[in-house]
Parts: sequence; structure tokens; C-alpha cells
Amino acid sequence: MPALVKSNMLIAQSGGPTVVINQSLVGATLEAKKHRQIRTILGARFGVKGILAEDFVNLGRESAATLAAVANTPSAALGSVRKKPSSEDCTKIFEVLRTYEVRYFFYIGGNDSAETAHIISTEAAKAGYELNCFHIPKTIDNDLRENDHCPGYGSAARFVALAIMGDNLDSRALPGVKIDVIMGRRAGFLTAAAALAQCYPDDGPHLIYCPERPFDMNRFLDDVKGVYEKLGRCLVAVSEGISDVNKTPIVSAFIKESDSFGNIQLSGTGALGDLLADQVRSKLNISRVRADTFGYLQRSFPTVVSAVDAREARAVGAVAVRTALKQGGSGSIVIRRKPGRGYAVRFECVPLELVARATREMPESFLNAEGNGVTKAFLDYVRPLVGPLPKMARLRGVPLR
Amino acid sequence: MPALVKSNMLIAQSGGPTVVINQSLVGATLEAKKHRQIRTILGARFGVKGILAEDFVNLGRESAATLAAVANTPSAALGSVRKKPSSEDCTKIFEVLRTYEVRYFFYIGGNDSAETAHIISTEAAKAGYELNCFHIPKTIDNDLRENDHCPGYGSAARFVALAIMGDNLDSRALPGVKIDVIMGRRAGFLTAAAALAQCYPDDGPHLIYCPERPFDMNRFLDDVKGVYEKLGRCLVAVSEGISDVNKTPIVSAFIKESDSFGNIQLSGTGALGDLLADQVRSKLNISRVRADTFGYLQRSFPTVVSAVDAREARAVGAVAVRTALKQGGSGSIVIRRKPGRGYAVRFECVPLELVARATREMPESFLNAEGNGVTKAFLDYVRPLVGPLPKMARLRGVPLR
Repeated sequence: MPALVKSNMLIAQSGGPTVVINQSLVGATLEAKKHRQIRTILGARFGVKGILAEDFVNLGRESAATLAAVANTPSAALGSVRKKPSSEDCTKIFEVLRTYEVRYFFYIGGNDSAETAHIISTEAAKAGYELNCFHIPKTIDNDLRENDHCPGYGSAARFVALAIMGDNLDSRALPGVKIDVIMGRRAGFLTAAAALAQCYPDDGPHLIYCPERPFDMNRFLDDVKGVYEKLGRCLVAVSEGISDVNKTPIVSAFIKESDSFGNIQLSGTGALGDLLADQVRSKLNISRVRADTFGYLQRSFPTVVSAVDAREARAVGAVAVRTALKQGGSGSIVIRRKPGRGYAVRFECVPLELVARATREMPESFLNAEGNGVTKAFLDYVRPLVGPLPKMARLRGVPLR
Repeated sequence: MPALVKSNMLIAQSGGPTVVINQSLVGATLEAKKHRQIRTILGARFGVKGILAEDFVNLGRESAATLAAVANTPSAALGSVRKKPSSEDCTKIFEVLRTYEVRYFFYIGGNDSAETAHIISTEAAKAGYELNCFHIPKTIDNDLRENDHCPGYGSAARFVALAIMGDNLDSRALPGVKIDVIMGRRAGFLTAAAALAQCYPDDGPHLIYCPERPFDMNRFLDDVKGVYEKLGRCLVAVSEGISDVNKTPIVSAFIKESDSFGNIQLSGTGALGDLLADQVRSKLNISRVRADTFGYLQRSFPTVVSAVDAREARAVGAVAVRTALKQGGSGSIVIRRKPGRGYAVRFECVPLELVARATREMPESFLNAEGNGVTKAFLDYVRPLVGPLPKMARLRGVPLR
């Protein structure tokens, strides 16, 4: 039901930041400024927490220069939150929205944020509060259903590809076993992007482990041994979320007693990398074994941005506002890839419940049969999202006559 | 003693790679090609190991295009090594050099590599083998004596500054305590560069700990508590090499029994970050605490290069060859900063023993009295080495009237 009278809109950011999440914020803000149906553009600080606390800023009063600069700045400019609103929260939220005359609500985030939007939309209908409620996609994990890919992924994948390129050269200069732990709790898209680093046939990553396939420590050790014996080194890319056949994360399966890590968290700790390195060192008797956990740099590193990703992140914000004004109601903006030779996408709007909560995993066709690498189908899928990568050069290595 | 007859030169790379170490290799190669005194330009693969194994390539036969591309590729294109030659190694080395008619030897690396050059130079004199022997500086640690700064440092410092910029924004969006562990065993220059990330007064890093000052766990916890109570978050940059008053690395002082980490190494493990995070979590009762260890990305990440650093790395290679041909003998090329307002440097050659082995630490004037931050003097020192950094923007945050 398109709102015919002027009303205010509210936008907020939620979940883990990305380097392009502000593109979506700015895309939505600039689009809203074009439409007379929108009077004031409120930004809530720290997601739903800011709505509950009436912690708002007036985005319509930001200068074009500030918006342009913020769009190019990583992480959520409004602040973020991980909070699922309760029924009482919703009651309070609608009170606040009523006070501020908000009839359009946009929430930028991943599947948890889509769920929040879905809850708010459903509860608003129950409460008889007329609210147009839209989810704007964002996640470096690339795990939103209904989407070909998600804003934030291309840039994070670019970071991973560059990092692995550099680390491959490092390991080539000082050979050994190197293990790089990459974000991704249930979906391996980001870890799989490490494969883009390969310029020469013997370049790493030599092994890639994603959460979609059960991780077996002995098979992993065999794999590493095989590569090491062949090349004299081995570079491994592994998802933080790798789990055994019982879906127990490896990091928690192996680190049990005398656990000094508090709650087992997957990011922001080097535990998994150290565990795998320790296994390689002790079981394979290889002396030079190192592990790095890429951590939060993957989602926040300035200057490493995929141009396609930035453009699409901007677009989904604008599309959300146009869709809300045109058709009203609720929904999640999704990215679909157009069939054909060149890379092109179209944006659609799907019901919130199709995107909320659930995660999308990598399709079978993207992972090799051995479960330790990716396929050409994945590389074809990911390349246009990441953009052109620099070439890493080698000496020709001309022998002495 | 300038060699008047034609002879061959040998160049090799050693120690931890940097993103500009190949600039020095290419700088030396291109310079050598200009001089008729040099006949063949041999590159040894994997440092002195390659000399012993006669594993050589003919650098003079690489195309200009390959050399240009290699110069812009991170990590040691010839391969690297960490090996101190014994007397027997030296005897074998001189046999090989004699066979290949090498009278000019260039070794690119840090203080260990300068020591290798010094050993080879001294042993050559003892053995009566006429050899001109030069060290070309390289280290992200910036800890070579006699140098204002070292090639490789500016680019690594740039990586650290950008990473902390992004991480500061991440921590601003999802507040908590964040600890970032940065390379540097005995010198804190690289960790200190985190200070460049600060754009606004409340930006992180809020605390910086370098190995030059003894690290006290209780004072650290007090510092974190103070910042957290004031700002609701705290971003810490800490050197991997921080040690207690007895010079025992913190990572080994605290991780004793049931140690699953094998040899205590400082890089390539998340142990120190996890340890500090655990202390903050348990002692200060703060729930959201994360640690990242930047690891090998700091020294190998493609595209994050300081233009000044790349230029100077190229220059020291060329200067080494010119110096060797002009004055002969032995020495280490050093960078001195010219006094005056603008940034300018001059290159000199000093005796190898002044640079070999020993490390340079940060001067007192670069660290604050509390031992948890840097001074303006340090920022003035480091800025020209890193080059212009992007501005991180904030919303003005206009209140709703």
C-alpha cells in the first residue's frame, strides 16, 4: 500500500560491518532525498538499540560531501548491533516510530537483520501499525538465500585473494606449511575466494577447506603431507567454521579441558589456526609451520574494495527506497545474476521470510570431489564480483648458459 | 680496491620478505647492466643456500618488462633463507665464487643478513679471496643501526596503519575491547605506526605497547579499564615481542604447562593475542573481547605499498652497485635523513660491522612517559615514510532539531 501522505523514514545498520555497508546507507539516503513522499530521513544509531533509545540523527541534513566520504569509509557509520527484538521491544519500537511519524523502515544487514525486519514487520501488522519494512542485504559471508551474491562479499573476497597472493609468495620464499584461517561460520564462499590467488600452477592455496564438507583431521594431515612432499611447501586456506561429521566445530572438538578461551568463539581468536599448526607440526614432523587468522581485517580494511561490490551496495540501498515508495509493504532486496556471457545483475524484492534467519551454503558444484578445493564453476562465479586482481610476477629464471 | 678487470656479480635475498625487497633486487640488477665492469649478473636462489648448491639464475637475461613486474611483486623473487654461514660454508662459498668468477657480492636483508655479509667478507680476506661484499638493507622491523629507517618498513607501517583504521571503525560500530598483535620482536617501530590510524580524538589505537618498555600485566589491565570506562571501547596495538622486566617474552611467561604450541614462536601464532584477550575478559569482566594477530600479511600484502618506500628500496640496490664499483671493499648501504623542513634522504656506506647482528630500538623520545603510547616526535618521523593515508569519514550526526 503506497503511502500517499508525507511521512518519515528510518534506516539503521546491523550485524558485522563490511567495507561497503555505508554505500547502502548513502544509496538509500540520496534516493530518499529525491522523493517528496519522504519528509525526514532518520538514522538510528546502533541498530534497533538506537530505535529503543531514540538515538537518532538526521541523515537528510548531511552534506553531499560528507555522504560521499562516508560511502567510501568502511564499517557501519551509524554503528551496529546484534540484537533480536522481543515482543516488548516491538511494542516500544512502534511507540517510538509513531512519535517520530516513521512509516518507512530500512534495515541493512545479514540474515539475522532480515529476521529482525521480518519480526518488526509481522509485529507491526499485528499491532495495527502501518509500516513499510525493508531489508537491505549485506554480508561478507555471502550466505543470504535468494541472492546470487551479497554486498560486502566481493570486497572481502578481494581482501582474501590479495592476502593469499602475498602469503603464497612469502611461503614460496621461506617454504614450510602455512595455514590461513578465514571467516565463515557455515558458508565457505569467503574461504573459497582464496583460490583466486593462484597465478602459476604451483601457487597456493594448495588446499581449501570449507564448512560445507565435514572436516577430518587425518584426511587433512594426509592432504598436507601429499602437497608438502611434492612441492616442499603447502599453503592451506581454511574456514573458521570447519566442523566434524557431527557438525561440531573443530575448534571446540579439540580444545576441551584447560580451555582458557572462555566461550568458544570462532573469530577474534587464533585458536583454530594454532590447533591445526600444532597437529601438522607434531604428526607430520614438519618444523616450519605457521598459522595466521585473518580476523576482522577481512571485513574492514580500507582501500581494498571491489568496484562492482561498491556499486551494487550503493544500488541495493537506492532500490530498497524506490521499491518501498512504489509498492509499499515489506521485503528484502536481492541480487540476481542475469544469464548470458557478460556479467550483469538485476535487483528484485522478495518476501522477508525467504531471506530471514536461514543461511545459504555453497552449492555442491563449487567444491571439488575431495572436499579440499574449489571448481572452475566457482572461479567463474566469483571473478566478476572481486574485479581485476594484480598479476604477481616471477623471474624467468634463465640458467647460466 | 676497484676491480679494473671485468668480473661477475652475485646477488641474493635473505631473511623475512617485504613488499619492496624485489625493488632492491631490480635496482641493483638494472644498475649493474649499465656498467661494463660487470659481465654476468648471477642471482642465487634462497640466499647463501643457493650459493652452496650452485643454484643460480642469470639476472642479466631477464627482460625489462619482467624486471619491472617483479619489482612490484611482494616477497623475495629469488627465494630467501635464514642461515648463518659456518667457516666450512665459507670455504665452499669461495670455491663456488671462484668457479663462477664472482668478485662482487650483494646480500639484501636485515641485521642477520648484514652479519652474513660481514662473515663472508672477513673470511674472504682471511682466505685471500678478493671479494667486494655489500649489504643492501631491508626489514619491516626498521631496526637496523646507522639507518634513519629501512626499506620495507614504510610499506609494512602503511599496512598496519590501514588495518588499524579499519579495525577502529569496526570496533566503533560494535564496541568492546580489541587487541591487535603486530610484528616486532625487539623494536616497536611497526607497532607504533598504528598511531597513524587516528583521525578523530576518540579513535583508536587507544593504547600502544612496544617491546622497548617492560610490559606489566596489571598496568595493562588498568590502562584498558580506564579507556573502556571513558569510551565504552578500547583498541590496543601491541608488539608480539612485549616482554616483562626480566626480558622474558610475555607469551612464554604466561603460557607454561599444558602448552600445545610447540616451540614458542612469536609470529604465525595467535597465542599472545588470545592470552591478553583472556586476561581482559576474566579480570575486567568485559564480555566482548577480541584479538587479531596481523601475522605475515604485514610483510607481504600486495597493493599496500608506500611510494617513498618503493623508491628508496630501488635506490639502495642501485647505490650498492655503484658504491661497490666505485670504491670496492665492503659495506652496508644506509639511509640518512637530511635535516631541514621537507623530507629528503641521502645514502651512505658504512662498515658492515656497524649494522651486523645488533638491532636498533626506538629512541626514548618516540614513546610516551606511561609506556602506552607514542609521541608527536614519532608521528613526525613516520609520516613521510608511509605516505598520504585515506581519510576515514564520519557522519556529522545532526540531531533531529
